[in-house]
Amino acid sequence: VPHARAAIISTGDELLLGQTLNTNSRWLADRLTSLGISVTEHLTLGDDQEALASALQRLCRSSQLVIITGGLGPTEDDLTRPALANVLDEELIEDPVALAHIEAWMKSAGRPMLPAQRTQALRPPSAHMLPNSAGTAPGLAARHKATGCHIFCLPGPPNEMQPMFETSVVPKLRALADSGKDGVSGHVILTRAIHTVGIAEADLAARLGPLMHRRTSPLVGTTASRGIVSCRIRAEGPADIARRQLAETEAQVRAAAGDFVFGQDQDSLAGVVLELLKQRNDRLVVAESCTGGGLAALLTEVPGASAVFLGGWITYANEMKMHELAVTREILDRHGAVSTQCAQAMAQGALRAARDVARPPGQLHALAVTGIAGPDGGSDAKPVGTVFIARATADPGAPMESAEIEVRRFLFRGGREAVRERSARMALAMLRLKLAGLRTERLLWEI
Amino acid sequence: VPHARAAIISTGDELLLGQTLNTNSRWLADRLTSLGISVTEHLTLGDDQEALASALQRLCRSSQLVIITGGLGPTEDDLTRPALANVLDEELIEDPVALAHIEAWMKSAGRPMLPAQRTQALRPPSAHMLPNSAGTAPGLAARHKATGCHIFCLPGPPNEMQPMFETSVVPKLRALADSGKDGVSGHVILTRAIHTVGIAEADLAARLGPLMHRRTSPLVGTTASRGIVSCRIRAEGPADIARRQLAETEAQVRAAAGDFVFGQDQDSLAGVVLELLKQRNDRLVVAESCTGGGLAALLTEVPGASAVFLGGWITYANEMKMHELAVTREILDRHGAVSTQCAQAMAQGALRAARDVARPPGQLHALAVTGIAGPDGGSDAKPVGTVFIARATADPGAPMESAEIEVRRFLFRGGREAVRERSARMALAMLRLKLAGLRTERLLWEI
Repeated sequence: VPHARAAIISTGDELLLGQTLNTNSRWLADRLTSLGISVTEHLTLGDDQEALASALQRLCRSSQLVIITGGLGPTEDDLTRPALANVLDEELIEDPVALAHIEAWMKSAGRPMLPAQRTQALRPPSAHMLPNSAGTAPGLAARHKATGCHIFCLPGPPNEMQPMFETSVVPKLRALADSGKDGVSGHVILTRAIHTVGIAEADLAARLGPLMHRRTSPLVGTTASRGIVSCRIRAEGPADIARRQLAETEAQVRAAAGDFVFGQDQDSLAGVVLELLKQRNDRLVVAESCTGGGLAALLTEVPGASAVFLGGWITYANEMKMHELAVTREILDRHGAVSTQCAQAMAQGALRAARDVARPPGQLHALAVTGIAGPDGGSDAKPVGTVFIARATADPGAPMESAEIEVRRFLFRGGREAVRERSARMALAMLRLKLAGLRTERLLWEI
Repeated sequence: VPHARAAIISTGDELLLGQTLNTNSRWLADRLTSLGISVTEHLTLGDDQEALASALQRLCRSSQLVIITGGLGPTEDDLTRPALANVLDEELIEDPVALAHIEAWMKSAGRPMLPAQRTQALRPPSAHMLPNSAGTAPGLAARHKATGCHIFCLPGPPNEMQPMFETSVVPKLRALADSGKDGVSGHVILTRAIHTVGIAEADLAARLGPLMHRRTSPLVGTTASRGIVSCRIRAEGPADIARRQLAETEAQVRAAAGDFVFGQDQDSLAGVVLELLKQRNDRLVVAESCTGGGLAALLTEVPGASAVFLGGWITYANEMKMHELAVTREILDRHGAVSTQCAQAMAQGALRAARDVARPPGQLHALAVTGIAGPDGGSDAKPVGTVFIARATADPGAPMESAEIEVRRFLFRGGREAVRERSARMALAMLRLKLAGLRTERLLWEI
């Protein structure tokens, strides 16, 4: 086995019944992978001691590491402690240090300790408590005797689980990750995600061709989400070989995907666009109709966006388009709010208004989006999903009339949310092509 | 067994490695539960045919239903079809109807069909194809011969998976759900979520008191997400008893949570606020700084928002606040952009500008948000997370000076994303209290 194999178990009826979204598994999987540990499955179970004990038995046989989140609270549906004791074939005992911590925590919160909270100080005799810096429930670390599998039980709330993982689990995992190395050059898992926008997943796969046929390291796969198609590379083996393989494959992927590539790993499209703007000392404003603030929200998700993003107008009602962006009644009457002409007028209006606000040292850009997100409002000529996106760019000091404008028409499918999300991303894709000085190829969904 | 038992499998390296958040399991679990089917586990596996086949074998023995998402794409890392064939002990064949659908889909998108897409038309001979209204990949429905377990394979993208589930899977599940009933009064699972905003989860739990201590039906639990705290009730048993128990418990929960309750089940806070506006024939505009479009995006997520939401201003730069909303230089210099005065001026400016745009038949409302989302920009007096929210309301016909204004100061924790999300929701919470004519109690995080 080249790598330590890990399984992640999340417990809780609210997760199992779909009332709450499980974000812990993803967070843990990402952290474990970055530590060179192979995650083999995520499992979600309800508040069911028998099911948890049975899954833990199964996974201890196939993994070197099992991480369990949830079920450490003070209530009767918190069953991780008894399930662990059952698997270890031990009886729970009270840990005086853990009990003192719980008492001190409640005292500092100005609340009395409830009798039920005493159960949080219980542990199997062979297990160790992991301190909780953000709540009352201590974690547990244990070792399955028959298989040697390491078991960590962490609290469910992410703000308690994450610091406990970093402080108490990571140091122990480093030793475990090392034990899987071959001792000569170090056995590792390396991953790289290459992100593209504007190309279909199937088209990207066709361009990648035989790279995706491989059944051995490095593996290449694609995923699509909200208009972004990512190519994921995973190289595994001795460190020097894996590094070289990853670099070679990455170069091949980048060559195949060409100008559609906008970033890698943690890069977001909005972040990349903002960085390009920053490098050029440009500024950006937006004028949104069907995206209704979603484009601006994508941009302002990025810390530091205020350095180049001035703001914008949400002109959801036609009166707002006329009053705030000087879209004419004639355009609205003759062409409609969903038209090349309206998108163009919105971008020009935004550019004009923004120039009164602040004259940037570099170029000033405006993105305008108008379309039919649905579910209603479509027609034969302009079905639901029809969106016009304009990008206008003015040079510093030059008159407004010389601004350069580009409008593209798209037809997005997949419902209101998908239309809005994809519209915002295609607007950013259009600006990226301009800022990066790339040929404006036809983008996915453009008609 | 009173209920059909179901397991959910999600496949994809991007999920297993933690690169992508799995939202399908939660969505499916919620839908299955509402159909009266007991979900027993969610499992996430990588693009690994052997692991998938082995898990499917195991789950077919313990469940009446297994739903698999992902792995139906056109690329070689899409392995659900061969894994299913393997478990059914059959060889894949090409389905001419499915092939014709893929060809037609690509043609309508103006793109040639790629050879790899042909694999999407493959199915085990005993399986049926499920049509895909939003993409090329058909789903699959099959039955495990040895156990009789029903297997459904759905595409990974939520915008393809969800309509396929509703159209092709739900009708078959209704029969399955019925088969689990006891034949006398019908054994059912009933759930109800009661949503609150502005109260802490622990405070709500304290108000609910003994309702949450129950270990038998109906069960009551709380969950918190993005500023919304929900109380979830689950009643199980013969239909008439479960219905009565659910109604009684719901009444107790509503009484305990009081004015903080804004909706139930699928209600969103934005949807409830828009509905209240519609009933009164009022209109709304927003002026956003730190939320950067997020508040408007929440509102425009709701279909039909355009009936009452006019639009707004994203005044991220101070120059935008001055130029577009007439915030004075003096306010910015003396009090700063993050202040009661600035929030108030933004709301007044938005109200004034909106009245030039359109005079509503009812009242006109403006919500303004300004704060420090972080990670930088905090000070001792105004730490990161400090947000001022103003709500201004003008009567139809009355002079602007008579507009009623309320400003609240909040301190949100949990990082940039949490500060932005909670700010938008607290702005809506303030407007809801006003529209519903409720006492403006102190809201969570208000200081």
